[in-house]
Amino acid sequence: METASSPPVSTRGPADHEVRRQIIAAALQHFGLHGYEKTTVSELAKAIGFSKAYVYKFFESKQAIGASICATCLAEIETEVNAALAEVDTPPEKLRRLFAVCLDATLTFFAQHPRLYEIATSAAAEEWPEVLAFEAHMLSSVEDIVRQGRASGDFESVTPIDEATRGIYLVMRPYLNPLFLQYEVETVRESSVILTDLMLRSLTLKQ
Amino acid sequence: METASSPPVSTRGPADHEVRRQIIAAALQHFGLHGYEKTTVSELAKAIGFSKAYVYKFFESKQAIGASICATCLAEIETEVNAALAEVDTPPEKLRRLFAVCLDATLTFFAQHPRLYEIATSAAAEEWPEVLAFEAHMLSSVEDIVRQGRASGDFESVTPIDEATRGIYLVMRPYLNPLFLQYEVETVRESSVILTDLMLRSLTLKQ
Repeated sequence: METASSPPVSTRGPADHEVRRQIIAAALQHFGLHGYEKTTVSELAKAIGFSKAYVYKFFESKQAIGASICATCLAEIETEVNAALAEVDTPPEKLRRLFAVCLDATLTFFAQHPRLYEIATSAAAEEWPEVLAFEAHMLSSVEDIVRQGRASGDFESVTPIDEATRGIYLVMRPYLNPLFLQYEVETVRESSVILTDLMLRSLTLKQ
Repeated sequence: METASSPPVSTRGPADHEVRRQIIAAALQHFGLHGYEKTTVSELAKAIGFSKAYVYKFFESKQAIGASICATCLAEIETEVNAALAEVDTPPEKLRRLFAVCLDATLTFFAQHPRLYEIATSAAAEEWPEVLAFEAHMLSSVEDIVRQGRASGDFESVTPIDEATRGIYLVMRPYLNPLFLQYEVETVRESSVILTDLMLRSLTLKQ
């Protein structure tokens, strides 16, 4: 996939409405300061200067707002990852960048908005559609890279491609998942380098 | 390592006292039914028929009781893993069993005591000494297997052994960690097989 996917988001009102974007941007700031779990839609509406009824015209629930924030942030990470992948040529280097850039983007996001771990862990634990769409995109990116590496002769072609792809994806997945990542912030960059080297060894040609 | 390690536990009173074992066994049952976070030492003492002061003679805090439960359970898993490793000969088979048995023992434990995820996630998130000791034991078991595989000619010897060992350990670690595992129960056995195959491919000789 070359473009960021558009995960499904449950909404009311015109999807592309400017007010929706305003509410999402304001909610990102507000949840970022006050947390997601303990903030009600009333409090959020008051803080951003809208009536509760007006917010409900655009979002059917607090989770719908959380889902839109989640979709927006994941789309940004996807865009960043896609741009980084386009900058390098060889499949091994693409795999390295996929993991590193995705991790960096995620860590940067939570460093800026530490209280949004609350939305992210809910989204990950409850497997929101936005998360599943992001994971599908990641898996698809891994498969593209494995295919390219097989075509270029960088990677072995003996292992069934689905198995090789899924294995690589499963190695990276927990380290990009806020449920685990939030406790690994200090060490995860070093871990990711060791894991990338291992993944590349697993893909290497064996004659 | 051939024997289960004895992780450090903060205690009062004679370490090997029968009463300590009784309190730990009763606390395991009580926390298993009523949860760890919301149960006070008073409630626990009442439920198991001791005075609070008597419990405090043996454990300085609720966390000390939790730590003892944690140490007891992790020691059981270690014993089970060591026994399973002794049953197979080849290093690839040992690696396969290490992951599978450790995962099975952990899943079985939480299936029996689902509310003890609370102690386990606290222990993992706060890096209790019992958890660090268990992780050190796992890392050491991986290193033993990698060394044996290099000696037998099953595994390559080009990668620095610390790097190969740490990589394998980092692949397995999140899937054995309750912070991540609790959301992966349905799929983790299948994931572990795919990951084990990938780890073995990463270790294979390349001529």
